[in-house]
Amino acid sequence: MAQKIPTRLYLSEDEIPKFWYNLRADMTEKPDPILHPGTLKPATAADLEPVFCKEPVKQELDDATRLIPIPEGIQEFYRAYRPAPLIRAYFLEKALETPAEIYYKFEGTNTSGSHKLNSAAAQAFYAREEGLSSLTTETGAGQWGTAMAMACAFYGLKLTVYMVKVSSEQKPYRKALIETYGAELIPSPSNTTESGKKILEKDPNTGGSLGCAISEAVERAVKSDKCRYVLGSVLNHVLLHQSVIGQEAKAALDKYGVKPDIIIGCAGGGSNLGGLIAPFIGEKITGKSNTRFIAVEPASCPSFTRGRYAYDFGDTAKTTPLMRMYTLGNGFIPSANHAGGLRYHGMNSVLSKLYKDGCLEARSEVQTGVFDAAVRFMKAEGILPAPESSHAIKAAMDEALECKRTGEKKVILFGLTGTGYFDLTAYMAYNTKTMTDHIPTDAELEQGFASLPDIPQNK
Amino acid sequence: MAQKIPTRLYLSEDEIPKFWYNLRADMTEKPDPILHPGTLKPATAADLEPVFCKEPVKQELDDATRLIPIPEGIQEFYRAYRPAPLIRAYFLEKALETPAEIYYKFEGTNTSGSHKLNSAAAQAFYAREEGLSSLTTETGAGQWGTAMAMACAFYGLKLTVYMVKVSSEQKPYRKALIETYGAELIPSPSNTTESGKKILEKDPNTGGSLGCAISEAVERAVKSDKCRYVLGSVLNHVLLHQSVIGQEAKAALDKYGVKPDIIIGCAGGGSNLGGLIAPFIGEKITGKSNTRFIAVEPASCPSFTRGRYAYDFGDTAKTTPLMRMYTLGNGFIPSANHAGGLRYHGMNSVLSKLYKDGCLEARSEVQTGVFDAAVRFMKAEGILPAPESSHAIKAAMDEALECKRTGEKKVILFGLTGTGYFDLTAYMAYNTKTMTDHIPTDAELEQGFASLPDIPQNK
Repeated sequence: MAQKIPTRLYLSEDEIPKFWYNLRADMTEKPDPILHPGTLKPATAADLEPVFCKEPVKQELDDATRLIPIPEGIQEFYRAYRPAPLIRAYFLEKALETPAEIYYKFEGTNTSGSHKLNSAAAQAFYAREEGLSSLTTETGAGQWGTAMAMACAFYGLKLTVYMVKVSSEQKPYRKALIETYGAELIPSPSNTTESGKKILEKDPNTGGSLGCAISEAVERAVKSDKCRYVLGSVLNHVLLHQSVIGQEAKAALDKYGVKPDIIIGCAGGGSNLGGLIAPFIGEKITGKSNTRFIAVEPASCPSFTRGRYAYDFGDTAKTTPLMRMYTLGNGFIPSANHAGGLRYHGMNSVLSKLYKDGCLEARSEVQTGVFDAAVRFMKAEGILPAPESSHAIKAAMDEALECKRTGEKKVILFGLTGTGYFDLTAYMAYNTKTMTDHIPTDAELEQGFASLPDIPQNK
Repeated sequence: MAQKIPTRLYLSEDEIPKFWYNLRADMTEKPDPILHPGTLKPATAADLEPVFCKEPVKQELDDATRLIPIPEGIQEFYRAYRPAPLIRAYFLEKALETPAEIYYKFEGTNTSGSHKLNSAAAQAFYAREEGLSSLTTETGAGQWGTAMAMACAFYGLKLTVYMVKVSSEQKPYRKALIETYGAELIPSPSNTTESGKKILEKDPNTGGSLGCAISEAVERAVKSDKCRYVLGSVLNHVLLHQSVIGQEAKAALDKYGVKPDIIIGCAGGGSNLGGLIAPFIGEKITGKSNTRFIAVEPASCPSFTRGRYAYDFGDTAKTTPLMRMYTLGNGFIPSANHAGGLRYHGMNSVLSKLYKDGCLEARSEVQTGVFDAAVRFMKAEGILPAPESSHAIKAAMDEALECKRTGEKKVILFGLTGTGYFDLTAYMAYNTKTMTDHIPTDAELEQGFASLPDIPQNK
């Protein structure tokens, strides 16, 4: 007889992963290299080290080592809030009357409210080990800024957060939390950097953008020997750190002999999805499994589903190395959407390669539909989800309803990346039916594509 | 060799309590009975049932049954968010350089953000079982209102929440969350009740009070056959439901052979503290243990430390039965304090009796000191605590520092009742040093005492 599966599948502390799982090692075809924007040659560690910490740079460029040890100093931090629960969605299954089994890995039980802390801990630890005294970063929705503020408080580092101005005004409590953890918060664009000043000169009333905040944070970091820049998504080393999500989920499912048929994650820069699928996708790549992997993105910022596979900059000031990825163009300005964490023009290059090679599916959802799903979920499961995470909920519910139609008893696993405590303005808009959807027109997309670098690799 | 104690001591789903622990059964001297305010005779079930649900009334009056079974319909709800973690505060111990061992039972991992859900689940379940269609309640800080909204969404009941007007204005996100769960939220005082109208006539601009919101919710409930009133603290049945906190904490500690020397909880109406100490205090009462039990209350609302042990009403409209308790008088108006959940004039009568009999200690703390402790805690442990819970943190830290002074290796257990996601206005006041402390003068206390009922029992 099958063992009864509990509602919350906790692991013990000993079962927190001791290695990160580098999914690039499982890829038979590797993603294209990062390019130096000047020489258009593959970027070296020396190219990246003025901006990023040394160990993350090494991880960024390593596509061969499958298991990378997690230093004890990071494991110690992980023990403060991990293992994160894997939850069997019995209540949601009942509400949907589906024969499907639904599981979700819930990363929102820590105070930063999301999975971002997994990489923040790692990046702050390495900065301290390298003898740095401070870090800079940017934050849009605020999850990453909060996570970095927590990690820097723990490891004793100074942190400056450039927060997209409109976000810092809409989310005063996010700002308060980041400041309570002792970080300096600067609404971006600001006059503390050249790139900020340039943007303010053009448009003094701009609400800012993630790309612009990245430019400011990078500029500030490279001006000091003792300071580096940290990024919360998009890059390979961030996906690597997030592999604790997938590994814990797999370990918990393995205990009960459960194998997911469908694995779903929301995708902005891709770090959560990349971390969730890390230990699962190898078998798919080698044709040994039929598991489906689904990325869900907002219809207002559809990098996968309507973007181009091209080399592009990670920021609007065009200062970062070039990455080959699905992108809407660094100049694409996504319309306002309550899932601030998914408003990014590009996508991690590993996930982009997997999508190109047919190992990963993608779909886009409008936010009113996403919030319909979020509210149904929270009433059934009792957890207030972040708008970003709710994209995955929407797809999981759709797949479960499809099972109801066909009578199939599929196993669905999705990533519930975070909580919506700081997103109640969005829920208020939903409750009062003032939430609207925007799907970019083809002409709007063309404007974004026009910003793609005009280089031979993009021909 | 002693077993290594993990940072998070989770129990398995099978270990969620199947009985509530009624600590009154362990008391050799029972608390004085609740009195009918008209007859001044002990209140009967028939007196209480027009207001409250039947099964909770039975539990309210039962001071003999030690273990009361938790119905499967409530256990099912508990499985959605329990067991709650017991956490060994390794990081805080290190930060304080104390030889003490500190543990805290963290009840904030559910979406309502506090322990209140433990009783909300029970009360909503019994209402549904009784065939009721709706419930009313009041909420101050908002934790209880959110918990009831979640529970009513789960059990399919209509809920009306009277929220203290000034709170509903200061905490729009709390309001949004309660409404997203489908409850009707009415800022109190309102013109939906006679008691509300009366107060508004006197002072149209009043911000309301908890006592007034209680009066409105009770009035609304008694006007309908299919509606009852639910309360989130103070009453014995609420403490009973909260005994899952103490039982889980004890079960987790027992696994490692750990016995607490000091158990600490914040105290407003007393439900969290009563639940935490439930399975521990019997040995103290019978002289078999020397464990110290400490209640921590705000200096601005010091029921235990400066109140009188007297019969008093639970609400300002003087409509509830009379309870013998430590009270500042139902007419006492506590000054503004960010720990809204602790702004109550009275105290549960069981805890009052234990305090009177010397089984329980109490102390009061000013809020600036409480927030000093809260911020130190959150930087070390990574959890943003509610202002209410931070009263317990403050006392736990003081006891741990005393151990540092004396070199004693005591075991300290405290209740971390909830998270501070909706209290960031308070943290902002703390960060900007605009937070002030108010300690009532003796004259202010005398004004409150003047409102105590003039009955023989109070002579």
